[in-house]
Amino acid sequence: MHRLLITGAAGGIGRVMREKLAPLATILRLSDITDLGTAADHEELVTCDLGDKASVDRLVDGCDGIVHLGGMSGEAPFSKIMHANIAGCYNLYEAARAHGQPRILLASSLHTVGFYRQDEYFDATIPPRPDGLYGVSKCFAEMMAQMYFDKFGQETAVVRIGSCFEHPRDQRMLATWFSYGDFASLAECVFKAPRLGCPIIWGVSNNDACWWDNRKANFLGWRPKDNAGEYRAHIEATVPPPDPNSASALYQGGPFTEKPIYEDE
Amino acid sequence: MHRLLITGAAGGIGRVMREKLAPLATILRLSDITDLGTAADHEELVTCDLGDKASVDRLVDGCDGIVHLGGMSGEAPFSKIMHANIAGCYNLYEAARAHGQPRILLASSLHTVGFYRQDEYFDATIPPRPDGLYGVSKCFAEMMAQMYFDKFGQETAVVRIGSCFEHPRDQRMLATWFSYGDFASLAECVFKAPRLGCPIIWGVSNNDACWWDNRKANFLGWRPKDNAGEYRAHIEATVPPPDPNSASALYQGGPFTEKPIYEDE
Amino acid sequence: MHRLLITGAAGGIGRVMREKLAPLATILRLSDITDLGTAADHEELVTCDLGDKASVDRLVDGCDGIVHLGGMSGEAPFSKIMHANIAGCYNLYEAARAHGQPRILLASSLHTVGFYRQDEYFDATIPPRPDGLYGVSKCFAEMMAQMYFDKFGQETAVVRIGSCFEHPRDQRMLATWFSYGDFASLAECVFKAPRLGCPIIWGVSNNDACWWDNRKANFLGWRPKDNAGEYRAHIEATVPPPDPNSASALYQGGPFTEKPIYEDE
Amino acid sequence: MHRLLITGAAGGIGRVMREKLAPLATILRLSDITDLGTAADHEELVTCDLGDKASVDRLVDGCDGIVHLGGMSGEAPFSKIMHANIAGCYNLYEAARAHGQPRILLASSLHTVGFYRQDEYFDATIPPRPDGLYGVSKCFAEMMAQMYFDKFGQETAVVRIGSCFEHPRDQRMLATWFSYGDFASLAECVFKAPRLGCPIIWGVSNNDACWWDNRKANFLGWRPKDNAGEYRAHIEATVPPPDPNSASALYQGGPFTEKPIYEDE
Amino acid sequence: MHRLLITGAAGGIGRVMREKLAPLATILRLSDITDLGTAADHEELVTCDLGDKASVDRLVDGCDGIVHLGGMSGEAPFSKIMHANIAGCYNLYEAARAHGQPRILLASSLHTVGFYRQDEYFDATIPPRPDGLYGVSKCFAEMMAQMYFDKFGQETAVVRIGSCFEHPRDQRMLATWFSYGDFASLAECVFKAPRLGCPIIWGVSNNDACWWDNRKANFLGWRPKDNAGEYRAHIEATVPPPDPNSASALYQGGPFTEKPIYEDE
Amino acid sequence: MHRLLITGAAGGIGRVMREKLAPLATILRLSDITDLGTAADHEELVTCDLGDKASVDRLVDGCDGIVHLGGMSGEAPFSKIMHANIAGCYNLYEAARAHGQPRILLASSLHTVGFYRQDEYFDATIPPRPDGLYGVSKCFAEMMAQMYFDKFGQETAVVRIGSCFEHPRDQRMLATWFSYGDFASLAECVFKAPRLGCPIIWGVSNNDACWWDNRKANFLGWRPKDNAGEYRAHIEATVPPPDPNSASALYQGGPFTEKPIYEDE
Repeated sequence: MHRLLITGAAGGIGRVMREKLAPLATILRLSDITDLGTAADHEELVTCDLGDKASVDRLVDGCDGIVHLGGMSGEAPFSKIMHANIAGCYNLYEAARAHGQPRILLASSLHTVGFYRQDEYFDATIPPRPDGLYGVSKCFAEMMAQMYFDKFGQETAVVRIGSCFEHPRDQRMLATWFSYGDFASLAECVFKAPRLGCPIIWGVSNNDACWWDNRKANFLGWRPKDNAGEYRAHIEATVPPPDPNSASALYQGGPFTEKPIYEDE
Repeated sequence: MHRLLITGAAGGIGRVMREKLAPLATILRLSDITDLGTAADHEELVTCDLGDKASVDRLVDGCDGIVHLGGMSGEAPFSKIMHANIAGCYNLYEAARAHGQPRILLASSLHTVGFYRQDEYFDATIPPRPDGLYGVSKCFAEMMAQMYFDKFGQETAVVRIGSCFEHPRDQRMLATWFSYGDFASLAECVFKAPRLGCPIIWGVSNNDACWWDNRKANFLGWRPKDNAGEYRAHIEATVPPPDPNSASALYQGGPFTEKPIYEDE
Repeated sequence: MHRLLITGAAGGIGRVMREKLAPLATILRLSDITDLGTAADHEELVTCDLGDKASVDRLVDGCDGIVHLGGMSGEAPFSKIMHANIAGCYNLYEAARAHGQPRILLASSLHTVGFYRQDEYFDATIPPRPDGLYGVSKCFAEMMAQMYFDKFGQETAVVRIGSCFEHPRDQRMLATWFSYGDFASLAECVFKAPRLGCPIIWGVSNNDACWWDNRKANFLGWRPKDNAGEYRAHIEATVPPPDPNSASALYQGGPFTEKPIYEDE
Repeated sequence: MHRLLITGAAGGIGRVMREKLAPLATILRLSDITDLGTAADHEELVTCDLGDKASVDRLVDGCDGIVHLGGMSGEAPFSKIMHANIAGCYNLYEAARAHGQPRILLASSLHTVGFYRQDEYFDATIPPRPDGLYGVSKCFAEMMAQMYFDKFGQETAVVRIGSCFEHPRDQRMLATWFSYGDFASLAECVFKAPRLGCPIIWGVSNNDACWWDNRKANFLGWRPKDNAGEYRAHIEATVPPPDPNSASALYQGGPFTEKPIYEDE
Repeated sequence: MHRLLITGAAGGIGRVMREKLAPLATILRLSDITDLGTAADHEELVTCDLGDKASVDRLVDGCDGIVHLGGMSGEAPFSKIMHANIAGCYNLYEAARAHGQPRILLASSLHTVGFYRQDEYFDATIPPRPDGLYGVSKCFAEMMAQMYFDKFGQETAVVRIGSCFEHPRDQRMLATWFSYGDFASLAECVFKAPRLGCPIIWGVSNNDACWWDNRKANFLGWRPKDNAGEYRAHIEATVPPPDPNSASALYQGGPFTEKPIYEDE
Repeated sequence: MHRLLITGAAGGIGRVMREKLAPLATILRLSDITDLGTAADHEELVTCDLGDKASVDRLVDGCDGIVHLGGMSGEAPFSKIMHANIAGCYNLYEAARAHGQPRILLASSLHTVGFYRQDEYFDATIPPRPDGLYGVSKCFAEMMAQMYFDKFGQETAVVRIGSCFEHPRDQRMLATWFSYGDFASLAECVFKAPRLGCPIIWGVSNNDACWWDNRKANFLGWRPKDNAGEYRAHIEATVPPPDPNSASALYQGGPFTEKPIYEDE
């Protein structure tokens, strides 16, 4: 690719992908609503409010691929979610439609299925059970991706990201951990595939504990390499086990299932 | 029920349900953004913009059940859909949560699955394939219903309405027709059930031609009585058959699958 | 058939089947542990403790078919269930094996799946979720039937009886009611089928409300005729609706799911 | 339709359809390898060996629809089956491709699944288990239909005919009977559908006993009316029941499963 | 855990687990009906007849976890199976209920599904097909576990043990072998899981040949390490291949499917 | 085995298997319609037209196993396919029936499912969608194998060969590649299995990209070792990527889906 756009590039995952995905394109265009620091030679930095249609249109213009990490990345008042995640998603797909339909890697979330129990095993065709407004907004984004694919042929890799951190942090993440390296190798498969379509892919490493069946995405040839199980002993030694009757032990969404609906400010 | 709220009561279905559902409650509270005419003795008329949170809160206060027909009922610019269907849906669920969680019958739509072909047969657990922004907004509403059920116990009957008219109007409606009488008998089952949960129900009559498996909703004891097949000869005699390669013959969503994304005004 | 054995013939269902199934055989042999009254000309009355192996052997000798209604028909101390339902079942199958393998209609129960929710719909291949010791004993009997079929070719119609009464008695029975007439017509199909195998059949009438998929038993050609829905208005008028959070409204097994483990006397 | 071709029109089903399908077209073109009697005014009679490519090409030229009943209709030496059913099928599809792709109703057979047991219930997506060379040739024809649909858009209704006679003749046909009237009403649905695709449809009446799930063909709006169950008492009274261990009682294909491979003459 | 109970500790698997599971608890309480030898410092030895309710109650008192290997471990007269496996199982669950519901690892068996063919592949939701009275008693125990979980929240890991020996002994065990090491690592996962529920787990190593899908238990994070395939050449060289028409080659339960019903002594 | 027959031994796969399968039998009988070169000491060379029944009968006489690679191995005029693949298949199965039913490894093809998309994932029970006459002839052969198994007990391993070459040659083969070594190890498993039945096995290596679920064949204990993914970088560097809208990128059958029906010469 000549120019790859990463939205939300100042966020936790975005900062890492700014490094790891650089080999995928000549130029990285990085956007966020907050400060992105200093641009390297191969970087373009854009401050952009995703809820602003015209700004998003300019942001997407000239890009050959998009890693869409932007928007609210957790529970928030509905007005903020509607602005950044719902209007933001619409703005992104309209901009892509106007500018040659660059392939999109869309950051969805395990919180689309957060109300399934941790002892349930399923693939991505199961009906969603979002665990809050954030999860609902991610379901909305998935439906937009599907509709733009069916209607206009826009390709998207919908990635339901588990827990994307340096390493797993508690017992639940022994199943949900998604290493940075596996995220990057997935992105490489997504942008190199001759034909992508609009698959839903579980963004999760090759962990011993596993809730999700990713076989329907096997056609991409992606095989995650990391395994949260290597951190099991360390976590059992350092993190108190969760109350077995708490949401952290019961539901895939963990604490999100217990969060309130936040009031608008 | 003492007081049943019908939103969108000035619309095509709303005007009929205003008559047919009157026996279900002592008082019907009817709302719309347009004129509702004159109130009968058992009626309360409320002009309400569903996108206004405070208005919706007042509207729901005091109701024991809600038939939510309001919002944009077809393809529209995204700003209108976001206002009436997305913010409107959030406002409704928040109002219900604040006022005792009255049971909700939510008008969803076949346009949540409009991009499936007409020769496909499935039940409501199949992944959605919405056929436009309207369809996506209905998927959003379904996800809100599921999340409020899982998180707060709010009960909703999600009804994916087919083609709800006096009688079927073309070949596609031989499969999608939902008679007014069957809608009313479904509403009665929904509000009388000792326990409802959050089922998705295909809103369709007992037509000879059938694309949707409703058996997972059999627990409600609802059996539609009307059959579009009785209009088949009439339609074949009076309506030109669709081009077999057109969206009307190919997709369940029919012409919706061909509609553009409307520009905001 | 020349001689049809009905065990448990003094029980609620047994007394009715004593009349209704008389046309199926020249002689009815009727057994129970309690008084069976006076024998009609075509009847043989036998007092029999099913837990006594030798007695059961004599009971089965000479019979061409068996309707096995005997044993504890509800929750009881485990010693009683083990004696009548578990040892009793073993005794029956061993007696059948010794005496020409007469076809058996085995009264199983909805309480084999009592812990599924009332809004779940499934067929008989779903894993059992019994709601008490009685339900577990019925699962045991089903497994015995399957094993004697696989190992020895013994044919059994496993009938998971819903609520077999004169008419439905409460809201739950709008889904579970099994009319006496439908039971009798099922028994006729079972004993007339050229080949039976070992199917599990939901013993339930053609009710508007329906939790169970009986299609895998369609090969028998049995179509129940009665419909609990005809009693809906009467029940809604005369029976208080269940607390929606009670077991009666939540689980298919209804109150059985709340019963304790009874102490042995 | 202007001209409907019926192949195999001198056979058992063909003679009846010659009468019943006349209303579907202005002209019936009737073909067989044996004598077809005298042509009525609306009929064209053609003697044709289906294994002869040029003859089939002429036969199909000018037709708007085809009911393909021709070929060997039961077990036969392989040379005959290869000539009439395999080469014949290829010739028919090539002729259709050359002459405007008239819609085809293809007579397939229950003998494509003859080795399933009579107590199994399934839909048409189950892997075939043909019961002889005839059944294999019907599987071949089904595959040809599917391939010509995928590759060229040729539409075919694959009808797996059960037992198509005046009335059911034995216990097995209580499940497999396909009345002439139901065949004719199915043909009407097939040729009137705005869009057909390439469905597999179980050609069976609305019998009490039922082995096959036809719901995937519901989109056609066809509802069979006849019921072999009305003949049950008559059959039980007049036809000796089959040996329960015989193929007639065990397998869906009945006696076909026991037929040898016939030697070529 | 402070105190882990192992029943059947004098049996083939019990003797090995006495060593391998010692690290899981401060104290091992070991029970059997036969001699257990000499207690080590961390061991408590209890002679116990599982069919005696009071004895089992005392046995379980004070334990934090139970590995239930006790009872008849193969085909036996029904009186013995009823005493040790059926009454024994009831006694164990009642004792657990009385004493704080310690987590249970229940030794079930492949003989719950012994009548499936060796070329069938399935997960643990398939309906059981036990191959004898022993297999039926294990189905009974599984149903008890499920019922105590649904009714009282008692957690059990139901482990369907394949062939648990030092190494595989014949061709069938190339698929069924369960190494001692893999048993022990499974037990560790079972007792360390923050929340267990009541899963059914195939107790089988990571063998090249595999009949059972264990993915629904993936949430435990257990990955078996041993592979019977490493013994394939040795077995092929030293063990005569089974008659392909014998039960050993045909059924998953192997020779158990051919065993008679043993007479009571 | 004493004598293993390989048909099509002069073809691309045949020449390699002539070497690799030699250890499986004392004598290799090799047949083809073209020149087979010089026989080694352990080889018997036979020129044979598979469409000639008597020749095939002599060919099979005395063999203990058959690897059937013969016939047209790609799209061809129907007369050739009918001769070599259809009559040839019938001749082979009749010869096997006459000569002790030696086990058969039948070379089927991915072209039985060539019209599925490359982003679909399924197992071998999915309905075929052949991509041409060649694919249809392979479906025919599969049905023959199933019928001879059901009717006569003839065992066949149906192997749907992907792309069997020295190494993968383009992007599509990253998913379809079947290494020679994995073919040979599969053949060894097939002929050593105590009991084979009639499974359908995907003939594909352990590639990172994967469209087919082979778990139903796990009972054979075969685990492919090679991985086309190791050639990914090389292919991406040397082979131009396919047009994403071409058959090569869209369908599993790749270019076969675009081939015409060849005219007979």
